[in-house]
Amino acid sequence: MDFTYDSRTEELRAELLDFMTEHVYPAEPVFAEQLAARADPWTSVPVVEELKAEARRRGLWNFFLPGERHSASTVGGLGAGLTNLQYAPLAEITGRSPQLAPTALNCAAPDTGNMEVLALFGTERQREQWLRPLLDGEIRSAFAMTEPDVASSDARNIATRIVRSGDSYVITGRKWFISGAMNPNCRILIVMGKTDPDAPPHRQQSMILVPRDTPGVTIRRGMTVFGYDDGDHGGHAEIVFDDVRVPAENLIGEEGGGFAIAQARLGPGRIHHCMRLIGMAERAIELMCRRSVSRVAFGRPLAAQGVVRDWIAEARVRVEQMRLLVLKTAWLMDTVGNQGAHTEIQAIKIATPASVEWILDKAIQLHGAAGVSQDFPLAQLWAAARMLRLADGPDEVHKRSLARRELAPYAEEASS
Amino acid sequence: MDFTYDSRTEELRAELLDFMTEHVYPAEPVFAEQLAARADPWTSVPVVEELKAEARRRGLWNFFLPGERHSASTVGGLGAGLTNLQYAPLAEITGRSPQLAPTALNCAAPDTGNMEVLALFGTERQREQWLRPLLDGEIRSAFAMTEPDVASSDARNIATRIVRSGDSYVITGRKWFISGAMNPNCRILIVMGKTDPDAPPHRQQSMILVPRDTPGVTIRRGMTVFGYDDGDHGGHAEIVFDDVRVPAENLIGEEGGGFAIAQARLGPGRIHHCMRLIGMAERAIELMCRRSVSRVAFGRPLAAQGVVRDWIAEARVRVEQMRLLVLKTAWLMDTVGNQGAHTEIQAIKIATPASVEWILDKAIQLHGAAGVSQDFPLAQLWAAARMLRLADGPDEVHKRSLARRELAPYAEEASS
Amino acid sequence: MDFTYDSRTEELRAELLDFMTEHVYPAEPVFAEQLAARADPWTSVPVVEELKAEARRRGLWNFFLPGERHSASTVGGLGAGLTNLQYAPLAEITGRSPQLAPTALNCAAPDTGNMEVLALFGTERQREQWLRPLLDGEIRSAFAMTEPDVASSDARNIATRIVRSGDSYVITGRKWFISGAMNPNCRILIVMGKTDPDAPPHRQQSMILVPRDTPGVTIRRGMTVFGYDDGDHGGHAEIVFDDVRVPAENLIGEEGGGFAIAQARLGPGRIHHCMRLIGMAERAIELMCRRSVSRVAFGRPLAAQGVVRDWIAEARVRVEQMRLLVLKTAWLMDTVGNQGAHTEIQAIKIATPASVEWILDKAIQLHGAAGVSQDFPLAQLWAAARMLRLADGPDEVHKRSLARRELAPYAEEASS
Amino acid sequence: MDFTYDSRTEELRAELLDFMTEHVYPAEPVFAEQLAARADPWTSVPVVEELKAEARRRGLWNFFLPGERHSASTVGGLGAGLTNLQYAPLAEITGRSPQLAPTALNCAAPDTGNMEVLALFGTERQREQWLRPLLDGEIRSAFAMTEPDVASSDARNIATRIVRSGDSYVITGRKWFISGAMNPNCRILIVMGKTDPDAPPHRQQSMILVPRDTPGVTIRRGMTVFGYDDGDHGGHAEIVFDDVRVPAENLIGEEGGGFAIAQARLGPGRIHHCMRLIGMAERAIELMCRRSVSRVAFGRPLAAQGVVRDWIAEARVRVEQMRLLVLKTAWLMDTVGNQGAHTEIQAIKIATPASVEWILDKAIQLHGAAGVSQDFPLAQLWAAARMLRLADGPDEVHKRSLARRELAPYAEEASS
Repeated sequence: MDFTYDSRTEELRAELLDFMTEHVYPAEPVFAEQLAARADPWTSVPVVEELKAEARRRGLWNFFLPGERHSASTVGGLGAGLTNLQYAPLAEITGRSPQLAPTALNCAAPDTGNMEVLALFGTERQREQWLRPLLDGEIRSAFAMTEPDVASSDARNIATRIVRSGDSYVITGRKWFISGAMNPNCRILIVMGKTDPDAPPHRQQSMILVPRDTPGVTIRRGMTVFGYDDGDHGGHAEIVFDDVRVPAENLIGEEGGGFAIAQARLGPGRIHHCMRLIGMAERAIELMCRRSVSRVAFGRPLAAQGVVRDWIAEARVRVEQMRLLVLKTAWLMDTVGNQGAHTEIQAIKIATPASVEWILDKAIQLHGAAGVSQDFPLAQLWAAARMLRLADGPDEVHKRSLARRELAPYAEEASS
Repeated sequence: MDFTYDSRTEELRAELLDFMTEHVYPAEPVFAEQLAARADPWTSVPVVEELKAEARRRGLWNFFLPGERHSASTVGGLGAGLTNLQYAPLAEITGRSPQLAPTALNCAAPDTGNMEVLALFGTERQREQWLRPLLDGEIRSAFAMTEPDVASSDARNIATRIVRSGDSYVITGRKWFISGAMNPNCRILIVMGKTDPDAPPHRQQSMILVPRDTPGVTIRRGMTVFGYDDGDHGGHAEIVFDDVRVPAENLIGEEGGGFAIAQARLGPGRIHHCMRLIGMAERAIELMCRRSVSRVAFGRPLAAQGVVRDWIAEARVRVEQMRLLVLKTAWLMDTVGNQGAHTEIQAIKIATPASVEWILDKAIQLHGAAGVSQDFPLAQLWAAARMLRLADGPDEVHKRSLARRELAPYAEEASS
Repeated sequence: MDFTYDSRTEELRAELLDFMTEHVYPAEPVFAEQLAARADPWTSVPVVEELKAEARRRGLWNFFLPGERHSASTVGGLGAGLTNLQYAPLAEITGRSPQLAPTALNCAAPDTGNMEVLALFGTERQREQWLRPLLDGEIRSAFAMTEPDVASSDARNIATRIVRSGDSYVITGRKWFISGAMNPNCRILIVMGKTDPDAPPHRQQSMILVPRDTPGVTIRRGMTVFGYDDGDHGGHAEIVFDDVRVPAENLIGEEGGGFAIAQARLGPGRIHHCMRLIGMAERAIELMCRRSVSRVAFGRPLAAQGVVRDWIAEARVRVEQMRLLVLKTAWLMDTVGNQGAHTEIQAIKIATPASVEWILDKAIQLHGAAGVSQDFPLAQLWAAARMLRLADGPDEVHKRSLARRELAPYAEEASS
Repeated sequence: MDFTYDSRTEELRAELLDFMTEHVYPAEPVFAEQLAARADPWTSVPVVEELKAEARRRGLWNFFLPGERHSASTVGGLGAGLTNLQYAPLAEITGRSPQLAPTALNCAAPDTGNMEVLALFGTERQREQWLRPLLDGEIRSAFAMTEPDVASSDARNIATRIVRSGDSYVITGRKWFISGAMNPNCRILIVMGKTDPDAPPHRQQSMILVPRDTPGVTIRRGMTVFGYDDGDHGGHAEIVFDDVRVPAENLIGEEGGGFAIAQARLGPGRIHHCMRLIGMAERAIELMCRRSVSRVAFGRPLAAQGVVRDWIAEARVRVEQMRLLVLKTAWLMDTVGNQGAHTEIQAIKIATPASVEWILDKAIQLHGAAGVSQDFPLAQLWAAARMLRLADGPDEVHKRSLARRELAPYAEEASS
């Protein structure tokens, strides 16, 4: 057992921290101004493109894409070839400026998951057409799974139909909270839907590539998350698919393979999200500490208040525990794979958003009205953390499932 | 001891419930449409004026203004003359639709507090000029106390200067989170500032009337609360006062009386806020129940899930406790006044926002992504409840103060 | 709505508070010494009998027994004839010294519930034989319901058999946590068991009187609650009933009436328990305050620590809410009866033990090692509060049931 | 970074698990019987000696004593020479049967800490006289630090005097909660007291060896912890030192070195306690699962209840996080020492007892009345966990200190 990062990780951490200090943090106020000034509320802004260029120049690019799992020839060596355990501490650092850093490094969701899917399951042609420009950061993409009319945490409920018709598939359904899809530069959607309602539950769904400009695709509106439209990241679209016809070759993998692809996509995504959340928590602790030592109430700095100290200590204690669990999960993914890390992947989904939400709440409370406002990143970070208690299924669903696994050996014992 | 509402309250509750069913709830979707369509993001919309007219026609108007505390001749008998205990259950009902109902009844903050101040401390002329149109619902007002640069929960920190200069006062300072002040129909600001920095701490502040269009008043921007600008209620303005000159007669009460007026304004405001929060909680429970019985996951309605039942029960148990405490506080205000109700006024400020936030969080969780979105009122209600854990000073300040009072007799005993 | 106690209550409160100050609190150390010195660990001690004599002399006796619900002639006018709402604040006061005061006033569980049952459902003969000496405080009694082998919170699970055999009933089964039954002066057990396993679920049980010295009754051992055996109150016995034969006239009420009698017994018992818990919480707050002002750490009294103040404030806020809800429940019992108060009776069972446990935990923490020890009453009070989260069924069962009632109208609506 | 135990650890874990299965778990009921039957409530019982003999035979002995930190010649090679990281997972396993396993392996507090102190700071002669029989498990020892009259979490408060008088030291003071000291086989006390009240705060205290039978040492009584006297482990004594005279050579280390020795003693002790707590939590989870699948209420096994699943999942998620943090702390102790692990040593003290207490509370709740009783280990484990929220200073003191360290760089920055 050893708790040190390896040397490759330490090098990249140092380079990334430099990049954060020299470019990302200084870009934050510029970003806010450019957002306020832009005409279209769903597009990106120039400073983001500048950061991307600089990051790529420095080789801080596509870290998320593991080296071992796809041939270098296919993806042109663009992935950094890091293990999950090597990437995780870098993802944490990007979480300190979550609106800018992940995108700057071409490591932002949902593109990362989509690129993984294309790298793992895409045909040569699908990769050439969509993976390459995504890896180059030229276009964006979206992942269309969640539906308003069903409890999507149970994938079997998904009702969008994908029906074979000659050389095409025809897609009909309604999706929402499709992150990134309001952005006009989002060119491609990976759509999850039902190809065979009569198959066994886990073989009914398939995934298919649908260019955003395909006739019949209507981007209806952007959904808000506690008042935020997240327009800088292409928002969260409601999309109607009304007899949308795409070539049959757009199917990813095989018919009925949708559930399995979704599962493969989940693990790394959870680790990325959780590590970024931890970076957000570190940013919040830093803001708490700065505010505490500089703000005076009732004749003393806030840092002298016992309750404030209690919050800061509790925040530190929680962060240290969470980080270790997420890192262990990344290590399990690398060493025993998705299946062997099943419990831990659920555990970090249960533990991290809730704890980070708690930390952000305390940081907000410490900042008073400033904390809920646009002058500090805290409220927006909070909304992101809160959303992650729901995304990919509410915590309660994951607890239920984790407990079932914990109980299984005893249930067997009892029934035998 | 008797836990029944009196007959006047019961009558008004019945009338108000009718009004809610017949007019307010049906107006909610209309309101959303009109908000989306309006040109100026800080103005009210027609449906609100229609509701106001209808409410006034029905005599559901200015309930908040107690009868005993000002002469009928002065305010033209416009106040309903209810006690705090009689108004409280009505305020709860308006909280079920908090964007519409309080305004419809001319019972919305911060106008209510401002009208109270004018009724209690205003001169004949101040009342004629500002109280009358406020009671008639013709104009809106704001209360400018919070400042960005100091911990305003300690009123002694307030730094805005109000300096006598001949027949005028000159005001210089910066305020923010001044609710309602972005609305062009907000015509008058009650500004809290320091007239005498050398006086004893509680005699340094004064309150003064500043028409919003006075030269030197700059409405700089609207602050957001999580992602909400609350534009339908005139937002939360940042305001700069740069050598703002108003006639000396604009002072409310006497120089150095600001702290005392602020205290008098607090009690009823807290009761109103808390009762509306309880109405919000009841709305949330209703939405939880409806969703629970209609939404199916893993083969059963959500209502069959043990965790969901636990939330609903806990929500009910908390609401019943909170309501009684707020009602008792209203009763104390009526029978022994502000001073006698001091502990309870702090207790409801501590207990209610936090508990209602908890209930709203669970209601959101139950609704999944829909819960955080604009399609349900839950996320916006949550932001309002969260804000109230900070408004008028963070919970922690109130706990500190309440504990000091609890400890006082023991401290005396120990030191004697 | 009126939050004042009536004059009869105020008078009795004053008399009881005198009695507490003059006799009960001074008796506490004497009680501890006598307990340590006695030979039989399950018996009462002399100081308790002295307190009983003094209380009776002062007319502070049998307060718990409501006046309206039984004819004075029957019970010899021994009950104080108070309503639930009048008795509740007195029960709170006794909770401040829960090992002594309830017994001193002949208002201790389980005797109170048993006397209620006999007063309401007993025959003339049963009352003469058992109710009279109980009302006189000459003997003690126990209520034998809980069983080790089944989840007794679901009364239908109770497995003890009561079988008719000629002029007798024969009882067979095992009970545990039968409070008071280790005490040799506990003379009579009310036993709940199944007379007809084939009847509808709520008509299978009956209650029957079993003198503790009946052949076949084996008092096996005292169960502990955390490390306490509660020997001063007769402990919590495990009892085996092995072909125990009693006259048929010992049946209380009719065959199959056990469930209904248990329900009738519940409501007042919950109110008494909850009010005593509130008294315990007040005692804990008092101890916290005293310790806070007198104990110095890191150069300041504990009372100056923010976290300590936070606890004290939170404790006060919770107590105020709880008390009002329990008082309202008492008022509902008096005005609309058991059925109309159903939700509230469950709500106080859910809210009170958990909150009082929280308060006691904080009081213990504040006292350091002393708090967990025999030198302060806190740890023992904590164990009592903790036990009440389980007694009469765990909180979770009550939440489940309360939620079902909350959901019922929506479920109907949804299904129609 | 690597999350696997090394091969030495895995081997020892396997051997220890065998010993637990073959000897320790079967000894638990025997232990309970022998405890109930013994004459002196403070002595050990035969089954413990048998376990010790068997463990030593198997080489499962003195694991706690690290190899690198003292010369093999001095302690006769009796220590196992494990690192903290190697011992930690073994300590966890012993926590599954905390009344038996740690003692069986001669790894029970407070002897372990005392042996560490003697190994690190003792003279040749002190080691020969006291360390050797302790390492052989022949005698027991106690550590006398906590005092009833001061907040001992601030070591500077300690008031017991140790005064030089010729060739002796004379000790006067009162201690309590001195674990193990009621046991007649506890032969030696390490007493912390003040040698120089005028020295700087951290140089006032010294530690000295006081044989338990020295004239002037009065073992006054055993303190209880939630009703438990912990007599099987020698209880928690109140001890009066009344002019107790011991040879000057009994001083450990130098005058004024007491604080430093106490600090050195702390780190490993915390790790041991926390790992044992994690073992207790695992035992509790196992008991929860067994009960859940076997107990039926309302027609279904408890395992089918959503709330129960929520508890089990939450327990698992918490345990995984805690264990990693404690292991990392052990690794830090091994690699950078006490000072470098300062934050983590406090973090585990804050996180572990509170979380394990939570898990035990849920396990108790699931077991109903059985959970609080002597029939399951849960209530007693709970009391132990609860006590550890206070031992070595309450959580709040540690949070305060940890936060101060977190804030330090910001405070410097702000003041420069």
